[in-house]
Amino acid sequence: MPEFFNVLPPGDALQLLWKHLTPHVQAERIATKDALGRITAESICSPEDLPTFPRSSMDGFSLRSGDTFGATEGIPAYFDVVGEVPMGQPTTIRLSTGEAAIAYTGGALAHGADAVVMMEHTQRIDDTTIEVVRPTAPGENVVQIGEDIRYGDLILPAGHILRSQDLGGLLGLGITEVTVTKQLHVAIVSTGDELVPPESTPGAGQIRDINSYTISALVTRAGGIPVPIALVKDDYQAQRETALQALERGDILVFSAGSSVSSRDMTADIIESLGDPGVLVHGISLRPGKPTVAGVVDGKPAFGLPGNPVSAMVVFDLLVRPTIYMLAGCAEPPEPPTVRARLLRDIASQAGREDYVPIRLVPQNGELSAEPVFGKSNLIYTLVRAHGMVKVPLDEGGLYAGQEVLVRLY
Amino acid sequence: MPEFFNVLPPGDALQLLWKHLTPHVQAERIATKDALGRITAESICSPEDLPTFPRSSMDGFSLRSGDTFGATEGIPAYFDVVGEVPMGQPTTIRLSTGEAAIAYTGGALAHGADAVVMMEHTQRIDDTTIEVVRPTAPGENVVQIGEDIRYGDLILPAGHILRSQDLGGLLGLGITEVTVTKQLHVAIVSTGDELVPPESTPGAGQIRDINSYTISALVTRAGGIPVPIALVKDDYQAQRETALQALERGDILVFSAGSSVSSRDMTADIIESLGDPGVLVHGISLRPGKPTVAGVVDGKPAFGLPGNPVSAMVVFDLLVRPTIYMLAGCAEPPEPPTVRARLLRDIASQAGREDYVPIRLVPQNGELSAEPVFGKSNLIYTLVRAHGMVKVPLDEGGLYAGQEVLVRLY
Repeated sequence: MPEFFNVLPPGDALQLLWKHLTPHVQAERIATKDALGRITAESICSPEDLPTFPRSSMDGFSLRSGDTFGATEGIPAYFDVVGEVPMGQPTTIRLSTGEAAIAYTGGALAHGADAVVMMEHTQRIDDTTIEVVRPTAPGENVVQIGEDIRYGDLILPAGHILRSQDLGGLLGLGITEVTVTKQLHVAIVSTGDELVPPESTPGAGQIRDINSYTISALVTRAGGIPVPIALVKDDYQAQRETALQALERGDILVFSAGSSVSSRDMTADIIESLGDPGVLVHGISLRPGKPTVAGVVDGKPAFGLPGNPVSAMVVFDLLVRPTIYMLAGCAEPPEPPTVRARLLRDIASQAGREDYVPIRLVPQNGELSAEPVFGKSNLIYTLVRAHGMVKVPLDEGGLYAGQEVLVRLY
Repeated sequence: MPEFFNVLPPGDALQLLWKHLTPHVQAERIATKDALGRITAESICSPEDLPTFPRSSMDGFSLRSGDTFGATEGIPAYFDVVGEVPMGQPTTIRLSTGEAAIAYTGGALAHGADAVVMMEHTQRIDDTTIEVVRPTAPGENVVQIGEDIRYGDLILPAGHILRSQDLGGLLGLGITEVTVTKQLHVAIVSTGDELVPPESTPGAGQIRDINSYTISALVTRAGGIPVPIALVKDDYQAQRETALQALERGDILVFSAGSSVSSRDMTADIIESLGDPGVLVHGISLRPGKPTVAGVVDGKPAFGLPGNPVSAMVVFDLLVRPTIYMLAGCAEPPEPPTVRARLLRDIASQAGREDYVPIRLVPQNGELSAEPVFGKSNLIYTLVRAHGMVKVPLDEGGLYAGQEVLVRLY
């Protein structure tokens, strides 16, 4: 297969890949309190009203609002305080005209009451009498039944990533279990004759595997489960057998390939050999990250990431990360956080190619400046020293010093 | 203790609290591959050069650059190709003048070579001869020893939150274990006569506990370990005993208090009773979130969060989250992600008070619009329906429709 026969912009490459993929949303039920960051597998509707009783939103007195009509500082309305409605207990008090009951924030109202007058709008006359100095509207300072959420209302759609407040909202309705999509397993095959594991001392010409660990961490960040399969030499049969194992154990296959052209070609050949449709993308109009291979095998996406650490990270972000979310049923994956900063130097690029340049953020005169880290993309410390990356869009020839740019934080 | 005797802006409240706190960085050694998101407890310097040998950054031929000087298309320099330097193996080839060896991206150079000429800048003449059509500079297409990182160089400072690329960078140097600060335990005491656990069916006047679950999830998000202690009634002795347990089990104490004034006052009394200096902050010029209590007891911060879900979340974000990071040794905690959006409606505020308004993001004409969710702050679904919050700064009277605002995503 000739190299780069079909160089596509990153967005087109992803679309082409996704044409051959469908979310395979396997669901599981887990405890809601453990579901932070997980993706809902089905929409969730409210099983009840919240609150189930009218609650006071103030400390004050519950009363019949009609009894306060016309009340002013000059002609206040007088009320007999007939008791209090304690927090968390059934109300036993029923109000008649001209009666009020002490109400607490979050507590229930007395029977017959339809409003709460704030403590601050009352005067205590004696032990059992208050005056109210302004009219209270029906429903004032009351959270009505179902005002937070009503029985049957949609709480969350399917494909929603659960946040802290979502867990609180679900548990507040007694929804102690939730159906979420299973986390995708991303099988990572590290290939390259020059690579040894981190715990080894590299011999002459050898270097420790870096990318498969960076990629594992990125998979975790994207809500997937990294499954390290093996570190294999650039041997076709050995790699193919490893790839078959990986396909069994993973929903997504990622080759962290050696950096040489022959090593990359081998990845493409193996993906092509594993099943249909095989390789779909061979080369992306992206820098760094051009020598990327992507395909689909038996309904599972397979990626051959470039060997350079910076390239691997960029390609992971643009192709693998959104695919993990898409397959897990989340159509709109969260983007990495961004900050705006003022570019300190020109960045030259080439129209027709998307560029990503590592950026170091420097606080300067109360704003953030973006210092491009022009390290080589084959150096991992280019990324360690950077806070994020800036993108030069496909159709632009570069970015200019002084320009405000959006830095994607990694 | 009178309520709100000392209402402080959120920033001042945090400063006052931090004056009485020192990071108590307990360290532990863990596997680097498991250290994503953890905080370095000490600075890390490189134990070796990376790479340890000069590596080719291209596929081509390693050679002595001097032999190419003066080469042009018209007068090329000729080289005998005396072999290849295979990936991952010691080099056995030593070049003499006029000799070259096949080099692979990421592979070593032949002995005696100081540069690599790209394949594209050569012509193959016969099986063992190439011509080079332009001069190659010394070091061209070569990653030098230590060019990625040098022996002794600072890799990461203490207090750094480990990212994907940091793990790759550490493992690439054989640093398979790393000293990180222990995750802080945040003991959460939920108080309120009206509260029942999520698995219960609330009786008349009762409501399920929401806040302690939202808070637990927020603690997890901030890198801490939530330790739910108990759900206790508004009884001074019971709460004080629970608080003492919580102080033993947690590095930080959070009261998720009932919503009534008496419940909040009890929280303040208990924090005050537990030790010195006791309550430091009683009321914050913040909306929602004014009825916040914060103090320090035996060197541990204790927070009494407001009972309203929205208030609790805002106060957690402004006070508890940064304190978790600070105590864990990270002076500059990551901020929640933000997006810019155009405000759809005016937001009125009051100078001298910081306001946070929940925002729903709406895509509109290719940009994001920010729709304020003016739900009551005592409704959890106000937050479930929102994507984030917008801040009205202390000294501003409001924000205006059409204005671009920064939405903090929660």
